[in-house]
Amino acid sequence: MPRRIDHVAIIVRNIEQALTFYRDTLGLQPRAIQDVPSEQVRIAFLPPGDPGGSEIELIEPTSPDSSLARFLEKRGEGMHHICLEVEDIDAALQEMQSQGVPVLDREPRTAAEGRAIFLHPKGTHGVLLELLEKPHEPA
Amino acid sequence: MPRRIDHVAIIVRNIEQALTFYRDTLGLQPRAIQDVPSEQVRIAFLPPGDPGGSEIELIEPTSPDSSLARFLEKRGEGMHHICLEVEDIDAALQEMQSQGVPVLDREPRTAAEGRAIFLHPKGTHGVLLELLEKPHEPA
Repeated sequence: MPRRIDHVAIIVRNIEQALTFYRDTLGLQPRAIQDVPSEQVRIAFLPPGDPGGSEIELIEPTSPDSSLARFLEKRGEGMHHICLEVEDIDAALQEMQSQGVPVLDREPRTAAEGRAIFLHPKGTHGVLLELLEKPHEPA
Repeated sequence: MPRRIDHVAIIVRNIEQALTFYRDTLGLQPRAIQDVPSEQVRIAFLPPGDPGGSEIELIEPTSPDSSLARFLEKRGEGMHHICLEVEDIDAALQEMQSQGVPVLDREPRTAAEGRAIFLHPKGTHGVLLELLEKPHEPA
């Protein structure tokens, strides 16, 4: 069972432009802006005020050839995916596969914040769902 | 500044059908399923495991004439809006108006969980954003 919503991702053409609304008008302060070359994106992480809560991520494709860039061209800016944190991504992958849920990954990929799989919207009532295992804190 | 993500809403044709994935496969247990006649919807509230976190809401239009039903017909099932909790919805409305953000409400509406306004996607980089003030706990 998912522990929490880790983040909700919004795809944008340009992070700096999007921050004029999300930071300057709405008041969300980015805790980091990070290039993720493996995913061909740049990500701004926007935590709301209360500590430890779910974040908004602004995602800007950095290559015109990526699937995210094609998504943006086709669908425009807007909500892209919801990420749920799980304890054990390998167990989650096995469970989804055994339940016949269409998964976009044969094995967990390295995401910005841990190991993740993506579930295809056709199995989730139209939502691109990321399941994420974050690195465990040292005991 | 928003305190937290209150919920992420997913619009579905039928809540019971959607629960076969979200509850039975993914493991999210609804804490309530509620009719909201004023919005012509039925809502299932799905909290992940950790207490106090952001929720997923499944929203099913209950009238074929509502704007939500038309959204569903046009766009299909999927992510519908992100709701951010704020301390003071009247101050938030005034701030958004003074900043020129297009707001769908002239005054806060009564939502399932408090008083809310919706920001038009054209002002938010493609996202229907709800700002919500929940009832304050008695001191």
